[in-house]
Amino acid sequence: MRIEEVNSIDRRQAGTRLLRVVFEPDGIETFVPAGTTIAKAALAVGCAVEMPCGGMGTCGKCRVEVQEGVSEPDASELRLLSPEALSDGVRLACRTKIERKTTITVPATSRSLVQKILSQGLFRDVHVSPAVSKVYLQLPKPSITDERGEFERLAAGISMYDLEPGIGTKLAQRLPRILRGSDYEVTAVVADSELIAVEPGNTVRRNYGIAFDLGSTTVVGYLIDLNTGHEVAVASAMNAQMAYGDDLVSRINFAMTEPDGLGMLRVTVIDVLNRIIRQLADAQDIDGDSVYEVTLVGNTCMSHIFLGLDVSTLGLSPYVPTIARAMVVCAEEVGLNICPGGHVHVLPNVAGFVGSDLVGVALSTLREDEDHTRLAVDVGTNGEMALIHKGQLYACSAAAGPAFEGARISCGMRGGPGAIDSVKIGDTVEITTVDGRRAIGLCGSGLVDAVAEMLKAGIIDSTGRMLAPDEAGHLPQAVRERLIEVDGSVEFILATEREAARREPITLTQRDIRQLQLAKGSIRAAIETLLHVAGATSEDLYEIVLAGAFGNYIRIESALGIGLLPPIDIERIVPVGNAAGTGAKLALISVRERERASRLAERTEHIELATHPEYESQFMDKMLFPESLGKAAIS
Amino acid sequence: MRIEEVNSIDRRQAGTRLLRVVFEPDGIETFVPAGTTIAKAALAVGCAVEMPCGGMGTCGKCRVEVQEGVSEPDASELRLLSPEALSDGVRLACRTKIERKTTITVPATSRSLVQKILSQGLFRDVHVSPAVSKVYLQLPKPSITDERGEFERLAAGISMYDLEPGIGTKLAQRLPRILRGSDYEVTAVVADSELIAVEPGNTVRRNYGIAFDLGSTTVVGYLIDLNTGHEVAVASAMNAQMAYGDDLVSRINFAMTEPDGLGMLRVTVIDVLNRIIRQLADAQDIDGDSVYEVTLVGNTCMSHIFLGLDVSTLGLSPYVPTIARAMVVCAEEVGLNICPGGHVHVLPNVAGFVGSDLVGVALSTLREDEDHTRLAVDVGTNGEMALIHKGQLYACSAAAGPAFEGARISCGMRGGPGAIDSVKIGDTVEITTVDGRRAIGLCGSGLVDAVAEMLKAGIIDSTGRMLAPDEAGHLPQAVRERLIEVDGSVEFILATEREAARREPITLTQRDIRQLQLAKGSIRAAIETLLHVAGATSEDLYEIVLAGAFGNYIRIESALGIGLLPPIDIERIVPVGNAAGTGAKLALISVRERERASRLAERTEHIELATHPEYESQFMDKMLFPESLGKAAIS
Repeated sequence: MRIEEVNSIDRRQAGTRLLRVVFEPDGIETFVPAGTTIAKAALAVGCAVEMPCGGMGTCGKCRVEVQEGVSEPDASELRLLSPEALSDGVRLACRTKIERKTTITVPATSRSLVQKILSQGLFRDVHVSPAVSKVYLQLPKPSITDERGEFERLAAGISMYDLEPGIGTKLAQRLPRILRGSDYEVTAVVADSELIAVEPGNTVRRNYGIAFDLGSTTVVGYLIDLNTGHEVAVASAMNAQMAYGDDLVSRINFAMTEPDGLGMLRVTVIDVLNRIIRQLADAQDIDGDSVYEVTLVGNTCMSHIFLGLDVSTLGLSPYVPTIARAMVVCAEEVGLNICPGGHVHVLPNVAGFVGSDLVGVALSTLREDEDHTRLAVDVGTNGEMALIHKGQLYACSAAAGPAFEGARISCGMRGGPGAIDSVKIGDTVEITTVDGRRAIGLCGSGLVDAVAEMLKAGIIDSTGRMLAPDEAGHLPQAVRERLIEVDGSVEFILATEREAARREPITLTQRDIRQLQLAKGSIRAAIETLLHVAGATSEDLYEIVLAGAFGNYIRIESALGIGLLPPIDIERIVPVGNAAGTGAKLALISVRERERASRLAERTEHIELATHPEYESQFMDKMLFPESLGKAAIS
Repeated sequence: MRIEEVNSIDRRQAGTRLLRVVFEPDGIETFVPAGTTIAKAALAVGCAVEMPCGGMGTCGKCRVEVQEGVSEPDASELRLLSPEALSDGVRLACRTKIERKTTITVPATSRSLVQKILSQGLFRDVHVSPAVSKVYLQLPKPSITDERGEFERLAAGISMYDLEPGIGTKLAQRLPRILRGSDYEVTAVVADSELIAVEPGNTVRRNYGIAFDLGSTTVVGYLIDLNTGHEVAVASAMNAQMAYGDDLVSRINFAMTEPDGLGMLRVTVIDVLNRIIRQLADAQDIDGDSVYEVTLVGNTCMSHIFLGLDVSTLGLSPYVPTIARAMVVCAEEVGLNICPGGHVHVLPNVAGFVGSDLVGVALSTLREDEDHTRLAVDVGTNGEMALIHKGQLYACSAAAGPAFEGARISCGMRGGPGAIDSVKIGDTVEITTVDGRRAIGLCGSGLVDAVAEMLKAGIIDSTGRMLAPDEAGHLPQAVRERLIEVDGSVEFILATEREAARREPITLTQRDIRQLQLAKGSIRAAIETLLHVAGATSEDLYEIVLAGAFGNYIRIESALGIGLLPPIDIERIVPVGNAAGTGAKLALISVRERERASRLAERTEHIELATHPEYESQFMDKMLFPESLGKAAIS
């Protein structure tokens, strides 16, 4: 590897005497022609030096130590380095030229960036090494003694940064005009071994990417500065496909039955993504063309629609995707309004109902090299989850139904203004709403909380049966009064007329409890099946990571109380927010993380629950509420 | 390499017991699951076995020798192999399955094809190893226990042939329909690590490519069967761009001055190429979609126009191409009517006026590893030539003007019916025409012949001066009478009124002789300059290869007689026909030759003649005719 690189520099500079340079503390050696800057030499051997200003000599970050064999300090160095530093041999790598053989020390503080990714609670160190590189070049102009092709001229300049990109015809068609129009001073943009843009002048500092979490309900975009790895803006929008059905099955039906239904769904989502791109670009006051790369996670159906892939096979068992592995497409081809040659990287799926969104969750919350057994759960209409046990990954998707999103619950609603999000049952019933307004309905986290409290109070038994008013003698008066019978069926009043916005009580029916039981039974049975297949038990679980909005809002005691999650120490259950989106961000700022995503997806064993005997028996069992809790309350 | 491959088979077949197989005489070992055919196992280790029928068990070509550990002969083998052969252990690799560990001998006669390429006189052995591979697959159908993605299912099948292709979105969008429509029995077409087509059923035998020689005047296409390397059809057409000017400079001007001039030129040439594609496909009774790859050579301007690249920089010094290296584009993108995903490989250029056509000539006529000094010359409006001396390549382009194509000569014409193509001067003047009809004019080879004979006869001296009639006393009467004076200037009658179709004599003027002197002086000076730069002399020349139509028709004695070529043994001057087209064919049937073309182009030193002092002085000198010959005749 090293030898090849040395040779490649050698060949490019045939006839020039080469100087030996050693980089400490790694002891890497290379040979460069006299006049090469330390920064270029370091890049050539893969020893990246921090250069936020793009090597313009303005930021002073690329400090190295060198005692001899280099050029005299230039004006930038005299300005940015103290006399003491200079006399100690501190120099700027981007300004200092190698004149004789020498040894250079690169201190840790000048090494390639390390970015802490905040995943709502989970911090991880990630090296900022995006697929996109921008390099500023002052190229020699064509002359009678230098008749190289325009691209070869550019490629020779780029090769000094150890990049060897190819070029597509569209950019090649515009290349001579760009070079001549900018007097051969340009910034080349390289991604995945391809030259994707050439811009006049020095635009190295303007280098952005967008990570998308394409949900079936909500689409979130994160604008990332690819030079620093920092998130600089966030924007989100409803997925306008909701107009064609709010669940996946209706959208698949639409795609299959309407003429060009798939095309309509695709255009709809591309429009949403472009709206978010414009919002993000406006927020940072940049042009969409300064966004060079997009990463995208979503469930398998969403990413298939995005790519225009057939979704009919996702609607019928066996649920087979067209493609599981990661796809890279050109922004122009797919219709995203970023740099036309920019790449869109769609993360890999695991199976028809375990999509790249779960891969994103796994990427940001699980490590394949760790010893601990860890479970990541993303609860929505589908409960998707990934388990790592003894280095092996398992994943599945449980059809929980929309109860946790407030649907099919008599007074259910999405989490929003007026949604009851917590319930406390003591001598009386106390509620809170999302924004403190009068209650309108009950959202998913409120539902879990209400049922957990009702269990604890003995209003529900472990089979899910609600007490009739005449069985509730053990309850405090103010609570007992809330148990009412309507048309021969029992209901429990969570918010009285006075507390409710519409002046009608908000109640929980026996049927609502059954819906919750189905949903939580499905998810819990899936967890148990994963553990079973992996040969683990809940006692092996070192941690449960709760991804997504639901995981953020739910009260964990209540989730444990109703038996949604296995009984482990509450400290070991960690909500982490939009872990799928964090995965997309990781894949954007680090090529290594992107490769890791593909490895994770490939190595994950997918468990098909629908036909799994363990799941069936667990489902019957886990629809019940935890015995001890229920019993204790009733007794 | 080996170990990786073994591991990759291993991983794909996790859980299956693997059998050790050794391939003799190379001693290559591999491990395969029981039931693998010998052909697949051989492919997996890169030991290609000849299988023209695509492994259908119908051709009987894939004979190997194996004594034990394999399945019993099947019906195909019993039909195609004699009882003696079977008892000697001869088997068909495509039918025989490995059942236990074993050793297999692949005889030389069954090894991958070797195709002799005829380059009009020059034979070369070339391994048929095109970029395109077709493999027939019977895939397991999706089921509840096999929910792999459609592409992953296909890729797993393809991987058994040691291919790991990616897929573009357009093909991915159609993939499920193709697989389901063909009951998962398909032929996959892979080129350059990309899946370019998937076809229902077994279409392995239908596998074609086209090699194009895109000349500024004529376009030739060769249809090649990629399974055998055989040329199965040829078609040619005029380059319809002639309507926009018959020389490059007028076309460049057109592109620069007309609105979308470049686009018009491009469309014109794409139409011509598509017409040839249709002719070739019709000739072989196939669909254009069965053509999976195109290679193309042409001068730098032609290939730039084909790719829609800016040609304005080719019209002004310094003559800089947009791109010199080889380009690969998708047939659909460029508008060629072959398989939509098929690749078009445009061979590399050396410089603005040394294009991929000369690279094609060098590819088919020169070897970089040979010790001999060899010169390849392609004479046209530009005389392009390549020299190899001591392993180093040199190339240049001399602006000869159109004299050799019959233009700017008073009675000049292209070689065609009625063109005088040979002249003999003895006691009288004898001529022949291309087709034996009455003479209409004089083509390039006739011009060279006429002047060589006139020199020999002493009608012209070494400075190119034609004798006045009163200086010609030494000539035979019948010849002397042909020297006439018209308006004070001397002319020589080549064809009398009786011999000429229009009943007017066909003459050669003093001005015509000067035009020829300029043209031949330019080409000969270029040859001398190449030799000079290389540090060689004409005595070092082992061989001169004459490429192109002109080289085929010219009488070599005459070319030597006028000093167009350096004085070397006439046996060492070899006409080779369309060597540029042969280069395109080589690049089509062999990936190695394609890579060699890129190496050749990269390593070739381009000599810019316009400013070369050696060229200037040689040009003055080489406009004169060889001294000895002229003198001898006059004395």
